[in-house]
Amino acid sequence: MVAMWTVKVVSLGVVGLSLSLELLFWLFSRRRSERVTNKVLFFPSKVACVEHIFSPTLPHSHVCSLPHGVDTSFSRLLRYILSACSSLDLCLFSFSNMDLSRAVLLLHSRGVTIRVLTDRVYSAISGSQIGVLRKAGICVRCDVSAVHMHHKFAVVDGRMLITGSLNWTLTAVQSNMENIIITEEPDLVQPFVKEFCRLWGLNDSAQDLNSVTD
Amino acid sequence: MVAMWTVKVVSLGVVGLSLSLELLFWLFSRRRSERVTNKVLFFPSKVACVEHIFSPTLPHSHVCSLPHGVDTSFSRLLRYILSACSSLDLCLFSFSNMDLSRAVLLLHSRGVTIRVLTDRVYSAISGSQIGVLRKAGICVRCDVSAVHMHHKFAVVDGRMLITGSLNWTLTAVQSNMENIIITEEPDLVQPFVKEFCRLWGLNDSAQDLNSVTD
Repeated sequence: MVAMWTVKVVSLGVVGLSLSLELLFWLFSRRRSERVTNKVLFFPSKVACVEHIFSPTLPHSHVCSLPHGVDTSFSRLLRYILSACSSLDLCLFSFSNMDLSRAVLLLHSRGVTIRVLTDRVYSAISGSQIGVLRKAGICVRCDVSAVHMHHKFAVVDGRMLITGSLNWTLTAVQSNMENIIITEEPDLVQPFVKEFCRLWGLNDSAQDLNSVTD
Repeated sequence: MVAMWTVKVVSLGVVGLSLSLELLFWLFSRRRSERVTNKVLFFPSKVACVEHIFSPTLPHSHVCSLPHGVDTSFSRLLRYILSACSSLDLCLFSFSNMDLSRAVLLLHSRGVTIRVLTDRVYSAISGSQIGVLRKAGICVRCDVSAVHMHHKFAVVDGRMLITGSLNWTLTAVQSNMENIIITEEPDLVQPFVKEFCRLWGLNDSAQDLNSVTD
């Protein structure tokens, strides 16, 4: 009788332990898949005030004719960029959007390490923010090849990739039909991290001396 | 003595069953994560012959001055597109690459349902393949808005997304620095499927009648 009772207790104990491990494993897998960001943003974005993203304490009633407190594709994009804590690597064909430039300058003032790789021709066009970034002391390299550096991607803290069809211009954000993917999938992020390092190395700092200025 | 032996057998049985379930669960999870494609291709692609992708039985020695049997970013991109079994939805700013056009025509001849949504202005430029696709009977719609339809994405069989900075042109493939992501992550694919349907609906077939021809 005692032996049978022991069988039951031991069996139940083993089953209980096994189910607990299974549950822990499932919770861990679920948490991991929840943690990985996979988002898509489409443009054109609704035009709205983004001042509250730069100055969260500012009341919504400040003087501005645009709608306030509206969540748009662009405000979400700004938040993803501003989430950078340690580094931001930008590989951009065209960069003339002043709000995006402001976000990069804000991160720079917070001590985030920023590297900007851009197309030589487009860095010199009217309205380009590349000169503004350079003047602020941000490390900028222009692609030295004869072809277009047509990428439009950013890597936040070496772990989050922001990429798509969207050039960092006002027209792309407010007018064109565009897309942006935000992902933390290592299989997608790591090749971009590697490619950025390769391109950064190819266009070394020596050429900064004769690069385009604003 | 018999009771103790029974305890051991039952306990071992439960542990064995539990471990087997754990192993099956792990194999299933692994297989699932392996099945999901997450790839990145960078361009410019090495220039190589892609004839073997269209005609797999053709010997590599056929008359052509380009390197043969080389695996390039472009040959991989072609293979992903040609993997379509039932449908291919294209949302492209510019489409002038003849090999990509040939791949789409081949899929059309195999009975794959193809829908092409493109930018009105760029569909009319010299070298555009849009007229060729139309003539072959492929359903093409041009974006009717005043802004640019700047997307460069494809959805294969409603489950695989091909997107990035790369326009479907020869310059983008062979010269520029570009990227393409290939993913089956539902969180990334489904928004593009939905956006394609939305844009396709916005630019309904009525406007096909007065659209640009080659």
